[in-house]
Amino acid sequence: MMRTRAAVALEAGKPLEVMEVNLEGPKAGEVLVEIKATGLCHTDEFTRSGADPEGLFPCILGHEGAGVVVEVGEGVTTLKPGDHVIPLYTPECRECHACLSGKTNLCTAIRGTQGQGLMPDGTTRFSMLDGTPIYHYMGCSTFANHTVLPEIALAKVREDAPFDKICYIGCGVTTGIGAVINTAGVEIGSTAAVFGLGGIGLNVIQGLRMAGADMIIGVDLNSDKAEMAKKFGMTHFVNPKDVDNVTQAIIELTKTEKDQFGGVDYSFDATGNVQVMRDALECSHRGWGVSVIIGVAPAGAEISTRPFQLVTGRVWKGTAFGGAKGRTDVPQFVDWYMNGKIEIDQMITHKLTLDQINEGFDLMHEGKSIRAVVEF
Amino acid sequence: MMRTRAAVALEAGKPLEVMEVNLEGPKAGEVLVEIKATGLCHTDEFTRSGADPEGLFPCILGHEGAGVVVEVGEGVTTLKPGDHVIPLYTPECRECHACLSGKTNLCTAIRGTQGQGLMPDGTTRFSMLDGTPIYHYMGCSTFANHTVLPEIALAKVREDAPFDKICYIGCGVTTGIGAVINTAGVEIGSTAAVFGLGGIGLNVIQGLRMAGADMIIGVDLNSDKAEMAKKFGMTHFVNPKDVDNVTQAIIELTKTEKDQFGGVDYSFDATGNVQVMRDALECSHRGWGVSVIIGVAPAGAEISTRPFQLVTGRVWKGTAFGGAKGRTDVPQFVDWYMNGKIEIDQMITHKLTLDQINEGFDLMHEGKSIRAVVEF
Repeated sequence: MMRTRAAVALEAGKPLEVMEVNLEGPKAGEVLVEIKATGLCHTDEFTRSGADPEGLFPCILGHEGAGVVVEVGEGVTTLKPGDHVIPLYTPECRECHACLSGKTNLCTAIRGTQGQGLMPDGTTRFSMLDGTPIYHYMGCSTFANHTVLPEIALAKVREDAPFDKICYIGCGVTTGIGAVINTAGVEIGSTAAVFGLGGIGLNVIQGLRMAGADMIIGVDLNSDKAEMAKKFGMTHFVNPKDVDNVTQAIIELTKTEKDQFGGVDYSFDATGNVQVMRDALECSHRGWGVSVIIGVAPAGAEISTRPFQLVTGRVWKGTAFGGAKGRTDVPQFVDWYMNGKIEIDQMITHKLTLDQINEGFDLMHEGKSIRAVVEF
Repeated sequence: MMRTRAAVALEAGKPLEVMEVNLEGPKAGEVLVEIKATGLCHTDEFTRSGADPEGLFPCILGHEGAGVVVEVGEGVTTLKPGDHVIPLYTPECRECHACLSGKTNLCTAIRGTQGQGLMPDGTTRFSMLDGTPIYHYMGCSTFANHTVLPEIALAKVREDAPFDKICYIGCGVTTGIGAVINTAGVEIGSTAAVFGLGGIGLNVIQGLRMAGADMIIGVDLNSDKAEMAKKFGMTHFVNPKDVDNVTQAIIELTKTEKDQFGGVDYSFDATGNVQVMRDALECSHRGWGVSVIIGVAPAGAEISTRPFQLVTGRVWKGTAFGGAKGRTDVPQFVDWYMNGKIEIDQMITHKLTLDQINEGFDLMHEGKSIRAVVEF
């Protein structure tokens, strides 16, 4: 049992409280990690705010981190103290029916306990100083200077990569780029629309640039977002406030002499708004358009469309963690960052200490940050 | 100008009237066909009944036929008198942006005029004896002893194939089997659920058998349909009336020791009911389930689901004419029938004369026919 500092969500809707907490050492198959940096993601805020119906309190939020292995539990063979790692909220056991299917990244090995805020043995490692258990979050809890994770939920990465940048690969970067390359399978010369130019949307855009898309249309209600999006590869911008109908506007933009129908080959929702998800589907091309839902919708919200949209050849998909198999793909993303193939630095707009973490959520609400990162 | 006999839909909701009509000869790029046999499909009834908001009257319905070329218009090079043909409501021009994409069968060459009940030059070939134009239907109008179609809307087929069977390849057979092999891309060993065991559903089932599916679950409110479906390859049957929740029942059926989650790899809606479309999606497997909408929904009806269903890896698609490229794929389907690879004979449950055509719709409503075929 050790003590560490963490930002604890004591109850829904309240600011996080930075405090000392107890942390038990790693059990069999688990690993103790010193977190060096963690990003603040909208999903953390979704749970903190109380909007997440599955939120459990008290808990330690955070799922976008990077750090160093301190100690490994019994039977851990793939990691050792000193290894640099990125925690994975989507683990990769390489043994379950899902992993072995080769068709999905949604490993089921520890799904049940992870959803209950517990380690695989059904208990928590964190507790308050009075002994009250503190729930884990998405199996990660990176808003703590130290945390415990199962071995299968850690990607080992190269040691020369800076923690304060690669932590973003733990969620936003991989989700956005992975949606393009794994889930949509975008080909060279494609046309695409990206709804929402926040932290995920910008990564979708750079993924489209990597994939060789010809036309990358960004859509956002805030025209100030266009400038940054252009730096990542956006070629056209549409503000829904400036047009009668955003779907029709995108269709018109993509019409050519050869193609009287218009519509994008691929579209991506990075907003979590179910009406936007519909717009994204319906601006995709008759016959072959593929629309990918990335955003997390409010509890109970439903998507709808006329079935005719699908019968005439559109495909509606979704993605979690960009379809990436964490232990396999995340080290590759880190290499790509280090080789200059993907950009991260410009998206880390704010650096905070753990004590400033609530300011990070304020920046998110004010639309001032793309990514705020807490460094320990 | 010639005269021919046809079953004319004079107005929505009324029985068809068999009468002599005028038929102009083929213009440039068109072909005059003597129809030898035609199936009666729910889509014809959808329009006849008045439920189809795009229905135009008077018109000659029918889109599932087979016949012989009588005369070709100027510039027609791929067909000659005496050729056996199947009319295609989804043409294949091999020149438009859609055909050249290689990604879809939804040829756009004559889409505009076809939807308006007209030949590509914007006029009709049929008229009443008093000269009133009669609209074409789905570009085919096979409820007439003779009809005119564009060359690109005719598949040339082998001459030893019986018209009264292969007419069904003009819609139902190709739609059902094509949904499996073209749209879903089912692999050997897959599990699948088929909602609706009518003329389309049975063909989905035989498509799944061809594709090597291990488990083929049929779903229908009428348990009498199970017997026939078994003959085509159904391995399990679920009547939604007999279970609390059809989605859950299918998930339970597919759970195995290795797979605690359950759900089918592929599901197909062949009902046109939007709630069933949702059930079909939601009984497909987390991570990789693909659900294909085949049925035509009532005007204005919408499909819905929680986006979580897609974010956790399910894919929602649709199919029109089974994704088949008519001139290329339909002759292949005819070969498969002649070689015994696909079965049709048992599905043609009733033979009628043109004068009996309204009885065919009665049989459809009473659930007594799988396919009724009119022979000329």
